[in-house]
Amino acid sequence: MAASGFKIDKLVIIGAGLIGGSFALALKRAGAVRTVTGIGRSQATLQRALQLGVIDQTGKMDRDALAGANLIMVATPVGQMRDVLGALKLCLAEGTIVTDGGSTKQDVVTIARESLGSRFAQFVPGHPIAGTERSGPEAAFAELFDNRRVVLTPVAETAERAVMLVQAAWEACRAQVTYLTPRQHDTVFAAVSHLPHLLSFALVEELAAQESGELLFSFAGGGFRDFTRIASSNPEMWRDISLANREALGAELRRYRASLDNLQQLLDAGDADALGQVFERAQAARERWLKSKA
Amino acid sequence: MAASGFKIDKLVIIGAGLIGGSFALALKRAGAVRTVTGIGRSQATLQRALQLGVIDQTGKMDRDALAGANLIMVATPVGQMRDVLGALKLCLAEGTIVTDGGSTKQDVVTIARESLGSRFAQFVPGHPIAGTERSGPEAAFAELFDNRRVVLTPVAETAERAVMLVQAAWEACRAQVTYLTPRQHDTVFAAVSHLPHLLSFALVEELAAQESGELLFSFAGGGFRDFTRIASSNPEMWRDISLANREALGAELRRYRASLDNLQQLLDAGDADALGQVFERAQAARERWLKSKA
Repeated sequence: MAASGFKIDKLVIIGAGLIGGSFALALKRAGAVRTVTGIGRSQATLQRALQLGVIDQTGKMDRDALAGANLIMVATPVGQMRDVLGALKLCLAEGTIVTDGGSTKQDVVTIARESLGSRFAQFVPGHPIAGTERSGPEAAFAELFDNRRVVLTPVAETAERAVMLVQAAWEACRAQVTYLTPRQHDTVFAAVSHLPHLLSFALVEELAAQESGELLFSFAGGGFRDFTRIASSNPEMWRDISLANREALGAELRRYRASLDNLQQLLDAGDADALGQVFERAQAARERWLKSKA
Repeated sequence: MAASGFKIDKLVIIGAGLIGGSFALALKRAGAVRTVTGIGRSQATLQRALQLGVIDQTGKMDRDALAGANLIMVATPVGQMRDVLGALKLCLAEGTIVTDGGSTKQDVVTIARESLGSRFAQFVPGHPIAGTERSGPEAAFAELFDNRRVVLTPVAETAERAVMLVQAAWEACRAQVTYLTPRQHDTVFAAVSHLPHLLSFALVEELAAQESGELLFSFAGGGFRDFTRIASSNPEMWRDISLANREALGAELRRYRASLDNLQQLLDAGDADALGQVFERAQAARERWLKSKA
């Protein structure tokens, strides 16, 4: 019996990578699940997940594999969500709750509404704020979500009991559940996650494209390494996220470009006071943020 | 006797912070210096450096303190360089070599030429590519420069024996010495260091200025933390660096803004292929860079 009192018989994870695999392992650690079935595009990935004890059996997207499932976690890249949910609709029982771990939420809600039809009320959109630049079942671990935030973005149609079950599952994973609307979610993450990724990719690409690119990289140090760590992230995944959230990300990018226009003017004008004030406000804001998290 | 065979009798550090203090400690570790004198604006800082064993005595900027010095390391912020070198000129003996650790080099060379006059040949401009966002003598440690690059940017007037001594000192610190012209140096570091700092400050400041700033920060995760680590750097120091290198930094910022203009167009147009290719080239370039450093 789990400490939280939460216990389900059967979990299905669609996509047995970092997020899906860690979700399974965290629920197992809590004693909150009896058996986990893994479904995915790659048999090799599923076999590795099986060997690693992340899942207990593999299955295909059919009624057999989903029979008796209390909860299905869709943890595939956002770009595959339409295909996955469309296939899921054909074999989803009324009593099974579905959630996801996608990094954007307005598009997932739209896709889920279209794909799941009458089963849409069983779907709870979610986004765990945890991840590393690593992926695959080997990267999964039970502690990934400990004390991390998980944002759920249910809508008017979402069934209350579905939301309660998904919240309880995340709490059994020791995550902290927060609620936002899909639109709030996408606006927030455009600013604090999607934009930094785009900026980091942009810097590395721009330097690499210069004739002196190799010379430049040979002198790059620790600051550059940290600033560009997220440019080692999966390019396809971030392309999909950027496009899925292009409205909010586009607005943030426009705002940031206006900031850079301003900094360029201050720099060209040699305005030490104004430039120093921008840097000071930034440094102070970041220190406040670090303290608030401590 | 130092393993490298390098040994000096007396080192003077002007500024006993992270760079100056670590230089002293690294030379002491190598057995390459008999005594270290610290000079600085703050008596409190000098006293802490003395207590920590970073320096062996404190001094003022006068002939007494500099008497018999083989090497003087100027490790003050770039903004103080003119005052420091101007004062130094008045009491600098012919046999003493001077170097610095400033993050920009064209401006330092100009200031040194103007300030040191007939002593300019004794000055070797340098920049160790090592640093943390921490500062002060407490942050100094002997290993800071181990296997790190140090760029020296001597000019036509610089005395060969001065360059040789400074190179040997850095090698005794276990650093790897590389040569660039002052202009090459400033172009390279505008791209791989100064621009990332400016971009990181700009993002934090822009988010903090939004009405929903607190909400945004409350959802910021590990990617944001790494991307913005350098926005915790000293604002005054980075204001001075930005202005000292404003020509090269301005050019890099213009180039980067053009990259963002392009990304905005791709995003607005929903051009998945082109956007994915930018991200892929960035990710591949960063992986190549990581491998080249391994």
